[in-house]
Amino acid sequence: MTAAAPLASLSPADLAAFRAQKQADYDALCARGLALDLTRGKPSSAQLDLSDGLLSLPTSTTDRSGADVRNYGGLEGLAELREIFAELLWVEPEQVVCGGNSSLTMMHQTIVDLLLWGGPGSERPWKDEPALKFVCPVPGYDRHFSMLADFGIEMVTVPMNADGPDVEAVRALVADDPSVKGLWIVPTYANPSGAVCSREVATELMSMPTAAPDFRVFWDNAYAFHHLTEDEAKSADALAIASGCGHPDRPLLFASTSKMTFAGAGVAVMAMSAANKAWFLKHLAMASIGPDKINHLRHVEFFGDADGVRAHMRRHRDIIAPKFEAVDAALTTGLGGLGIAEWSKPTGGYFVNLDVLDGTATRIIQLAKQAGIALTPAGASFPHGDDPRDRNIRLAPTFPPLEQVETAMAGVATCVALAAAESLS
Amino acid sequence: MTAAAPLASLSPADLAAFRAQKQADYDALCARGLALDLTRGKPSSAQLDLSDGLLSLPTSTTDRSGADVRNYGGLEGLAELREIFAELLWVEPEQVVCGGNSSLTMMHQTIVDLLLWGGPGSERPWKDEPALKFVCPVPGYDRHFSMLADFGIEMVTVPMNADGPDVEAVRALVADDPSVKGLWIVPTYANPSGAVCSREVATELMSMPTAAPDFRVFWDNAYAFHHLTEDEAKSADALAIASGCGHPDRPLLFASTSKMTFAGAGVAVMAMSAANKAWFLKHLAMASIGPDKINHLRHVEFFGDADGVRAHMRRHRDIIAPKFEAVDAALTTGLGGLGIAEWSKPTGGYFVNLDVLDGTATRIIQLAKQAGIALTPAGASFPHGDDPRDRNIRLAPTFPPLEQVETAMAGVATCVALAAAESLS
Repeated sequence: MTAAAPLASLSPADLAAFRAQKQADYDALCARGLALDLTRGKPSSAQLDLSDGLLSLPTSTTDRSGADVRNYGGLEGLAELREIFAELLWVEPEQVVCGGNSSLTMMHQTIVDLLLWGGPGSERPWKDEPALKFVCPVPGYDRHFSMLADFGIEMVTVPMNADGPDVEAVRALVADDPSVKGLWIVPTYANPSGAVCSREVATELMSMPTAAPDFRVFWDNAYAFHHLTEDEAKSADALAIASGCGHPDRPLLFASTSKMTFAGAGVAVMAMSAANKAWFLKHLAMASIGPDKINHLRHVEFFGDADGVRAHMRRHRDIIAPKFEAVDAALTTGLGGLGIAEWSKPTGGYFVNLDVLDGTATRIIQLAKQAGIALTPAGASFPHGDDPRDRNIRLAPTFPPLEQVETAMAGVATCVALAAAESLS
Repeated sequence: MTAAAPLASLSPADLAAFRAQKQADYDALCARGLALDLTRGKPSSAQLDLSDGLLSLPTSTTDRSGADVRNYGGLEGLAELREIFAELLWVEPEQVVCGGNSSLTMMHQTIVDLLLWGGPGSERPWKDEPALKFVCPVPGYDRHFSMLADFGIEMVTVPMNADGPDVEAVRALVADDPSVKGLWIVPTYANPSGAVCSREVATELMSMPTAAPDFRVFWDNAYAFHHLTEDEAKSADALAIASGCGHPDRPLLFASTSKMTFAGAGVAVMAMSAANKAWFLKHLAMASIGPDKINHLRHVEFFGDADGVRAHMRRHRDIIAPKFEAVDAALTTGLGGLGIAEWSKPTGGYFVNLDVLDGTATRIIQLAKQAGIALTPAGASFPHGDDPRDRNIRLAPTFPPLEQVETAMAGVATCVALAAAESLS
């Protein structure tokens, strides 16, 4: 294969010929009557099968302290499960709370608590502040943004770079404006870019002066253990860094087993300073007598220890890494050298970030839909679904079988090329 | 046994002799070095054993629609589980949402949503109201009260009668004061009195004019299926009644399997009007991708259908009814005819309500503690723990084995008699 010429360099006649060829390719694509879905970051059936051992666990009904896990109590979660997470997240077991089936729920609870009561360091409940803003690196996770929108919290964007949020942009926002209360980040294999926040950037985020005395970094480490290669990223140990900077209460860590075991029936976890934990549990005690300790023990028996988690995640990698390779191969084959798209080559996580020619993302997703290929709506990775350049597309290749990923991505490449040709014509 | 004379009718000399005898009994009690606990309404190990079949369920991983319950989604819960609850609660399946492991959590979520956004019929978010009050029938459930206190919602008490809240007292509070936004009730086998709200009282509560356009009745039907005798109370069908009265959005129903299967690993449920459900799910979608559907299916397979639930609850009854009989027997033996105590003889639920001589409840609980018998703190069934007459004691006999209930209650009777003698001396 010879490298294609950049599309923008073609003569009008060559561009017309290219467009006609892509239109023909696209018509052939539509004629196949596909029904493929790359919209959501969901584990595949083969991945879920890895955890079917959970279905007949636990074999015991007491934890190591002798407490009956079938009964009420144990608000902070099973000690043995907290230890496993502590080792995986490089924190101390006493900093950890294990909850229900969703870290998103724990993030929501945390913001509710801050709104209604304020947290350690707050001058008042956040609901009583004249304005509330969060710094949102973009592209980012749509559910973070929709949650903030529902709370009426204004979102201010900064670029998400390859090593984390643009530190100078963040610094300029937080330094003088006390209404900037938080920043949300997926630090490891970010959704959707796959970026990994470096230790240097993490240190800047934890140490920079903020006008708000109760500024919080929501450190959503959803993909901390979700490596796609042997080159396993190590998340910056945000709690220790923050403590060392004199801001122990700034970071709130979240993670879960949703993409390790069963997506809807896993265990969520938080890690935080002693003051934050006491505060969080005080309000949690009003809403819960304790988490599902049976499910905690089920996961402890299933994993055994932190190494058991790591081994389990390598089995996930074996299933999904070829799908990410298929995405890259299809985009390289269909778009390489054309100068109309860039895409990430993540070494972990659940997404590929595809940036196309400005102004063509909406058109591409429409073309794909007509061809039976469902993609995440344009702008999904931006607050309020508004991508100012209309160029960002989030690809989620984990759920469909490999051959469907190959088929769908070849089709996506056709749509990208056709939309670019239309735009340049 | 001859009936004892009322203590208040004794001569000073007889009273002194009675007190000396009870002091001797109490000293003997303390000498036994007991360590018994009647504090919490928890199921016993024998009750939990009834549900051990859950530990190796589900055997399937798809629901009847074919969806993989191991994966994300299904915000309102498994349809087949919602149908079972709908039949048990006399509502329609489309009115039901099945959640996580705690109905308390769903109640908390509901109030959070009302505070932050208001609900159907609200003029503004409750947090923006100048004042917020709830009507609280007393004695009532301590966790309802502590939750309201944490939210900063003022509690106004009304008497809890044998057929439900005192309707005229409620009417007087809600008629003209728009800051009275809610009422909390355990309608069936109330905590702690065992009272069952009659259909007539329920109709009054659902139909009475309220100054607040978004007045809500939190209908916490925690013990709807927890019968202690063959005479099974049928809860008033609050949703249908309210709808018939033109106030479909007034009631919010809550229940759970916490005291049916595993106390910490059951399934919670809400039932409500279409408008309330759409509102609840809209905000829930910001905090959750879906409940633990594996646990939903686990419960569906375990129960089979509503009759399976009913049969299961009869097995609970067989275990705990003798404990309630032991409470009544011990109190009758120790206190009958003395005129110093009244207690409920509940036909369902988890508690016995013991009213003692005014001003002696705190002393009795202190005496019991010194004798190694842990009772719920005095005042626990009142807002802020404040029982104005210091006479109410909540007894929870389900958790300890039967012989411990017998021993503990004989001891409690001794403490009640001694404290009364002290008080009258």
